[in-house]
Amino acid sequence: MRARATDVVIESSGKVITKEVWSTLHIHIASENNFPTAAGLASSAAGFACLVYSLAQLMNVKEKYEGELTAIARLGSGSACRSLYGGFVKWNMGQEADGKDSIATQLAEQSHWEDLVIIIAVVSSRQKETSSTSGMQESVKTSPLLKYRAEEMVPKRIGQMEKAIKSMDFAEFARITCADSNQFHATCLDTSPPIFYLNDSSRRLIGLVERWNRHAGEPQVAYTFDAGPNAVMFAKNKEVAVQLLKRLLYQFPPSAEADLSRYVLGDQSVLKSAGVTSLEDIDSLSAPAEFAGVINLPRIPGEIDYLICTSAGKGASVLDGQIASLLDPATGLLVKNE
Amino acid sequence: MRARATDVVIESSGKVITKEVWSTLHIHIASENNFPTAAGLASSAAGFACLVYSLAQLMNVKEKYEGELTAIARLGSGSACRSLYGGFVKWNMGQEADGKDSIATQLAEQSHWEDLVIIIAVVSSRQKETSSTSGMQESVKTSPLLKYRAEEMVPKRIGQMEKAIKSMDFAEFARITCADSNQFHATCLDTSPPIFYLNDSSRRLIGLVERWNRHAGEPQVAYTFDAGPNAVMFAKNKEVAVQLLKRLLYQFPPSAEADLSRYVLGDQSVLKSAGVTSLEDIDSLSAPAEFAGVINLPRIPGEIDYLICTSAGKGASVLDGQIASLLDPATGLLVKNE
Repeated sequence: MRARATDVVIESSGKVITKEVWSTLHIHIASENNFPTAAGLASSAAGFACLVYSLAQLMNVKEKYEGELTAIARLGSGSACRSLYGGFVKWNMGQEADGKDSIATQLAEQSHWEDLVIIIAVVSSRQKETSSTSGMQESVKTSPLLKYRAEEMVPKRIGQMEKAIKSMDFAEFARITCADSNQFHATCLDTSPPIFYLNDSSRRLIGLVERWNRHAGEPQVAYTFDAGPNAVMFAKNKEVAVQLLKRLLYQFPPSAEADLSRYVLGDQSVLKSAGVTSLEDIDSLSAPAEFAGVINLPRIPGEIDYLICTSAGKGASVLDGQIASLLDPATGLLVKNE
Repeated sequence: MRARATDVVIESSGKVITKEVWSTLHIHIASENNFPTAAGLASSAAGFACLVYSLAQLMNVKEKYEGELTAIARLGSGSACRSLYGGFVKWNMGQEADGKDSIATQLAEQSHWEDLVIIIAVVSSRQKETSSTSGMQESVKTSPLLKYRAEEMVPKRIGQMEKAIKSMDFAEFARITCADSNQFHATCLDTSPPIFYLNDSSRRLIGLVERWNRHAGEPQVAYTFDAGPNAVMFAKNKEVAVQLLKRLLYQFPPSAEADLSRYVLGDQSVLKSAGVTSLEDIDSLSAPAEFAGVINLPRIPGEIDYLICTSAGKGASVLDGQIASLLDPATGLLVKNE
């Protein structure tokens, strides 16, 4: 449910420096983000969370109240407040007019629900037309359905989702995740002029999951789309993730000249369990049972850019300086890591 | 705002036949629909309106109350009740549990607002995945936003729309038409599992109109999508329709092997005024001013199947039997008109 923080490292001697000294110092920041940028996959959330965390570490900041840093991260990109912690995180709306109590809190550690496997389908890494921040502002101004959703639907669903996560109730988790993603995109469409984040590839990904879930009789996979066309899919467990990956490779094969190692990224164990080691293995995958009777199902090679297999993250952390630094310790200038 | 009734003709001697005699007679019905079937363009509305009108004419039915026939047509396909009358027609929700008072009434004759020109872009004539009747039933059952829309939004907008039509206020007409189309499709997306009628071509058509309206400073064209991907666009007047057709031909050129006379159907005067007589003329169209700065705008030949230029219709009517009959007067069997 959260983006991975990026590997930004700020050089620090580790000494405590007073506020007065800070005001005279300059900071050289180098950052690197391993997520597609501006594609609606919370790359800005990862980046801003990382920046705030790194500066706080450097300046040895102690929070005045729990979550103070998340409120600061939120100023860069709303969802950045969630990306500081690992596991399952809740963004509290807050009551104050100045938004100071709009903070994130951790609901559960990463280790709480380890069965969940996440597969992300990146259908397009092109720059999206509307930034999520300006899009949301337009929706607040012009969508009557968003007003209703915010007042009547979201508070109820937040409570249901907390309960589903705590009790690891996958069916309920999937029901709320899919319904809420679709409702968010419904309010985008109700905006004037309308905002479209989902495209035909997104629709086909939703179709794949919905068809399978219906055929299985209970949810196997949940999907959610943030402010972009890319699907984030949650598989009930590792075996289901293997089945999901096979279905994705069957319906969305890579293009003929693709390199399998660049088509399925992240945790390679799902691909390995699927028994797929070459493009020929993908060609010989057979249609899953629920595809029977589906007419005009396009299988367009290269429709998806790539897939990422992953799981809930551990939150922001300091990497080992010698290994991870993006700055040359001698010159303080950028080192380009290949 | 209504589909054209199709040219169904039922043979009648014109004599009045009593109820008792009817119960012993058989009727041979041949029908022809000149609209794409099951593509979300109200072809079933046209067909059922025509069937009810033809049978009523044949049987010399007198309505017990005004709109009784529209209530009967509604049983075949909801929107069929609107297709019996010409011009601008309202479908009244009604209050009775049995739906008997859910009838259509004519707001204004076809001649009331003759400036309006309609251009329909048929982006796909493929069978749609969800029929509009079953789709709406799923939405009623599962979409919380539809409930809010039906209770809070629709009654208000119906009143606003009636006023806009009566005063021929195009800006207001366009605002409500576009917002309400988008909100309808928002509730489809809020259905579980979600229903998608709009596709990427629909999105690009919406983009074309929204971009132009914003650039012009006031609405030139309104769009609406029924239960399918095809756009029904209303141009403010004939000159605007000519500009709209040129824009559509520029962004959605026919495929290289297309026949222009099969690409732009219906009223040929718009095409004539646009000065387009060949595929070469389309190739030499220049980009409209509001296209400047639009990046990655695809111009895929053949993305649209065909365009129809038309206007508000005159309602159901009896055609001349000799010319229009689909049945051979001698044998009573189907004559295939080419």
